[in-house]
Amino acid sequence: MRYVVGVDLGGTNIAVGTVAEDGSALLGLVVRDTPVAAGADAVVNEIVRLIKESVTEAKKAVPGMDVAGVGIGAPGPLHRAQGVVRLAPNLGWVDMPLRDRVSAGSGLPATLDNDANCATLGEWWLGAAKGARIVVGMTIGTGVGGGVVIDGEVFHGASDVAGEIGHTSIDSTGRRCKCGNYGCLEAYASGPAIAARAIEEVESGEPSTLRDLVKGNIKAITAPLVYQAAHDGDHLARQVVRETARFLGTGIANIVNILNPDVVVVSGGVTLAGDQLFDPLRREVIRRAFKPAVEACRIVPGSLTGKAGIYGAVAAFKSQRGAA
Amino acid sequence: MRYVVGVDLGGTNIAVGTVAEDGSALLGLVVRDTPVAAGADAVVNEIVRLIKESVTEAKKAVPGMDVAGVGIGAPGPLHRAQGVVRLAPNLGWVDMPLRDRVSAGSGLPATLDNDANCATLGEWWLGAAKGARIVVGMTIGTGVGGGVVIDGEVFHGASDVAGEIGHTSIDSTGRRCKCGNYGCLEAYASGPAIAARAIEEVESGEPSTLRDLVKGNIKAITAPLVYQAAHDGDHLARQVVRETARFLGTGIANIVNILNPDVVVVSGGVTLAGDQLFDPLRREVIRRAFKPAVEACRIVPGSLTGKAGIYGAVAAFKSQRGAA
Repeated sequence: MRYVVGVDLGGTNIAVGTVAEDGSALLGLVVRDTPVAAGADAVVNEIVRLIKESVTEAKKAVPGMDVAGVGIGAPGPLHRAQGVVRLAPNLGWVDMPLRDRVSAGSGLPATLDNDANCATLGEWWLGAAKGARIVVGMTIGTGVGGGVVIDGEVFHGASDVAGEIGHTSIDSTGRRCKCGNYGCLEAYASGPAIAARAIEEVESGEPSTLRDLVKGNIKAITAPLVYQAAHDGDHLARQVVRETARFLGTGIANIVNILNPDVVVVSGGVTLAGDQLFDPLRREVIRRAFKPAVEACRIVPGSLTGKAGIYGAVAAFKSQRGAA
Repeated sequence: MRYVVGVDLGGTNIAVGTVAEDGSALLGLVVRDTPVAAGADAVVNEIVRLIKESVTEAKKAVPGMDVAGVGIGAPGPLHRAQGVVRLAPNLGWVDMPLRDRVSAGSGLPATLDNDANCATLGEWWLGAAKGARIVVGMTIGTGVGGGVVIDGEVFHGASDVAGEIGHTSIDSTGRRCKCGNYGCLEAYASGPAIAARAIEEVESGEPSTLRDLVKGNIKAITAPLVYQAAHDGDHLARQVVRETARFLGTGIANIVNILNPDVVVVSGGVTLAGDQLFDPLRREVIRRAFKPAVEACRIVPGSLTGKAGIYGAVAAFKSQRGAA
């Protein structure tokens, strides 16, 4: 059995694991802060160090392990064939040749794909969308990432941009998004957008346990606090989650009418709200999308929390470099 | 050389032609009114009659012609494997086994696909998107039809609904669409929606040559009159076309970020407005979508006016039944 190292690079964390080629084991899982402030070289060096750390750890379980290479998932837009991250605002990167630098540093062949594509591919390979033919993935975090997997392959489009579902507008004159568009899903349903909407409500005087949770420092309300308060029954937090569900449901209805997928996988912190999120979300999709498309589509939470990106980066390596 | 008959069934017209399998000739083109009021049997009989008329005409040019079968494009949603039109409001049909009835009537094997899918496939085979890898087609008529062609095959999705781009919302609280959703492209950019917006403007007292074209009977303003007036320089008509372009551009920007296509083909009467439509439409897409996706994508008018659906139905027959 060969192994492939999966790297999930984010603006906050780097997660690395060493994965059996058949997906039967993830060994040497390490998660560390991304040293963004220390600069691009420091981030690349940290990735290389974590790869070595993960492999060393994995070899304790499987001595003499054969490591075939490294699959990297990174924020996009990317130039995949060149292995280059074209633009990553959260990392401060422009045209970073990440694949070749990691390959040189680790001494292993490497591939590069988009982080949200990898997360979707991971859920297709081993998670909530296992084996489904047409899979759409959405990851709600600092942004709203998206990916499309068709017949077990990431759908990349003409220039590696495909799947940017977080940057589809559901309100052409709505909130300005960081991408320049108006009314993007990301502008309503990302973690920071959810926190901002909760802060607006609490500031307007609505009663909520959120006020106590931050000891009156309303600006300190975060998305995870909102999910927790919703889970614990707070009325205002539940309302914010319901609104989020309706925004996401509107965007997912658009996707359902365009791609008619077998599965939509929603991942990220907001899914901690459970049925508080998924019930109104599914109702919104039913209300808006074509019935034969809704009936064909499961809408489910991701099942590989914190690992989907690693598994998917490994699957992308296998797909691009060929299985052993 | 074998030939395949292509049928493009619409709520207004039935267009039929006999096409050489390599696309080098379309013979025996016949276009007749769809006898909707006379009932479903009358429509099926008319389709069969027109197939025979087209083949008879075609055989005058190519005596002894070998006709392999019939490809049908029909309004959907369809059940393609069963050859059934599930629902066609403009024809008053529910669960009509169109493929087998046409096959029985004509004595030829037949296939069924969605009309907008066929139009997109036709433009891929022989038209404005010839040979492109990822093609999105939109047809502006009584509705706003859509289709997606990837690597020369229609992308059907899990239950033959994929490509319904006209039913993606660009304003979650916007105009109610006939499909039940709110803010669909079709509710703003279909022919009737364009006419309705022009009528609203003229009724509000805006000066326009449209008022004279309908001799003061403002309700008689139609979408083709708006396109003609825009082409001839009427200020109000141009404004309505510009607004239409912005709606379409918003929807196309969403598609560009999701599918990252090589080509978007826009067809239908509104394209008669030419640059009056395409200039603001392209500007809107540039304003909203990711730059690497916009740069990879041509947005062009269809080039097979009135024939894309026939050619595409033939291509779908070849794809489903195998080329000779």
